[in-house]
Amino acid sequence: MQLIRTISEMQQFSKGCKLSGKTIGFVPTMGALHDGHLSIVRDSVKANDVTVVSIFVNPTQFSAGEDFNRYPRDYDGDIEKLSGLSVDAVFLPGVDSVYPDGYKTYVEVRGLSEKLCGQFRPGHFAGVATVVLKLFNAVMPTRAYFGLKDYQQCVVIKKMTADLNLDLEIVLCPTIREHDGLAMSSRNAYLSTEERLEAPLIYKALTEAAKSVNDNSLKTNAIAQILKESLSEMKTLTEIQYASAYDPNTLDEIKTGGITEGQRVLIAVALKIGSTRLIDNIEVD
Amino acid sequence: MQLIRTISEMQQFSKGCKLSGKTIGFVPTMGALHDGHLSIVRDSVKANDVTVVSIFVNPTQFSAGEDFNRYPRDYDGDIEKLSGLSVDAVFLPGVDSVYPDGYKTYVEVRGLSEKLCGQFRPGHFAGVATVVLKLFNAVMPTRAYFGLKDYQQCVVIKKMTADLNLDLEIVLCPTIREHDGLAMSSRNAYLSTEERLEAPLIYKALTEAAKSVNDNSLKTNAIAQILKESLSEMKTLTEIQYASAYDPNTLDEIKTGGITEGQRVLIAVALKIGSTRLIDNIEVD
Repeated sequence: MQLIRTISEMQQFSKGCKLSGKTIGFVPTMGALHDGHLSIVRDSVKANDVTVVSIFVNPTQFSAGEDFNRYPRDYDGDIEKLSGLSVDAVFLPGVDSVYPDGYKTYVEVRGLSEKLCGQFRPGHFAGVATVVLKLFNAVMPTRAYFGLKDYQQCVVIKKMTADLNLDLEIVLCPTIREHDGLAMSSRNAYLSTEERLEAPLIYKALTEAAKSVNDNSLKTNAIAQILKESLSEMKTLTEIQYASAYDPNTLDEIKTGGITEGQRVLIAVALKIGSTRLIDNIEVD
Repeated sequence: MQLIRTISEMQQFSKGCKLSGKTIGFVPTMGALHDGHLSIVRDSVKANDVTVVSIFVNPTQFSAGEDFNRYPRDYDGDIEKLSGLSVDAVFLPGVDSVYPDGYKTYVEVRGLSEKLCGQFRPGHFAGVATVVLKLFNAVMPTRAYFGLKDYQQCVVIKKMTADLNLDLEIVLCPTIREHDGLAMSSRNAYLSTEERLEAPLIYKALTEAAKSVNDNSLKTNAIAQILKESLSEMKTLTEIQYASAYDPNTLDEIKTGGITEGQRVLIAVALKIGSTRLIDNIEVD
């Protein structure tokens, strides 16, 4: 397993793979790897000749006052976890090489980035789209893998990839959960014992709401009510940022008029337990 | 010479070239080709195994009220001009294939796009950067060619290419002029006989100003004065949008403090003759 630290080295590695006709699977991460990441890495290893995992805590996707500085970092532990999984290269670029002095270029997916998490994290998805495009240009993947826990991120990246005519396939991977249902997330490490004990109620609220999805509940906005009531059982809950039923393509809230035959429904929440912001979602057919 | 009309066909063509180890030179144009374009095409043909010329009048780089609809189009004439020049492929995508319904993704080079022409053409350089990135992703060039007549466009595209880690070289080509000094431009076709007779005064004003570039004239803002006086000799002049000495990297006006040893100076103007907007520039060492 090769460790690559610069963009030009990464491009050389990938051009070598492409010249010999090998497919490249790419798993971009911010490190602090958990079983959710490792499941995605395994998917890539299965489907591609070569797998590249990047670890880069991207400063431009953190808004002012967010947890960029305290975001968990464990490069040695991450590399150890990946070394057991037939990963071919770990790409660990420095902040200075990704955003050198005088950096000016940003990608925006307008009309999707401002919704849901975007309302609460101004500039977040421009930071995500920009760094993902830069990483794509460095790694030149055949397929790139993203976890559906970050649902809006998946929608934004898929749209950017189609809009910019990028010659690669986006593969979306199911959310991996702890045994009690809590979606795996590097930010779960922030939770106190009490908060951690209550956190599985998020997934419980989502599954409760999912059972109630029907034309009538969507018309009457009952899904949002069910979610808010279930979530409010948590004593450590400090804020619900959003919790409702959404159109999985437009990310608009489904408030009135119900849904058309065969349309999927996204049930998604963002909330704070104590000072820790967590998100989760499920899709209902 | 192949005519290619879709992005996927273009990508197939270019991947074929790359697999056989050929270099691809790319000349993006909005058509209405003149000798300035053809000179750039010849540069590409000389330096690359394969040359692709695109013709696409890009709607997103025209601001509201600008000349998108009346911009000169002569596809048959353009193809005839290119067929004599050993061009391998002409890429003529339709607006619907470049910007399909629901298109949302834009690239911005912040801090360069708002200056000079950007002040008068809001959104112009986001449109330029976006379409150029999309064309790059379709054509996958080894080298891409741009004319220095559109100086700010050159600066924006070079910055985007570096910032996004695009694996290609940007080649900037000198401005080609009519015998009387007028910079070649598809928009010269808008000029009336009287306007066309006066238009060479733009280049004359630039060369006059260039002769006066020295530490003192820059300190005292004399370049802008010389330009404005010279340009005002045109009876058909209706507006000077900008006319001064600029830092060729930052595009900031050089107003005070003069220049450092060896620094180049950009002298640039944008103005209207009648209702036709024209730009020109020269660089001074």
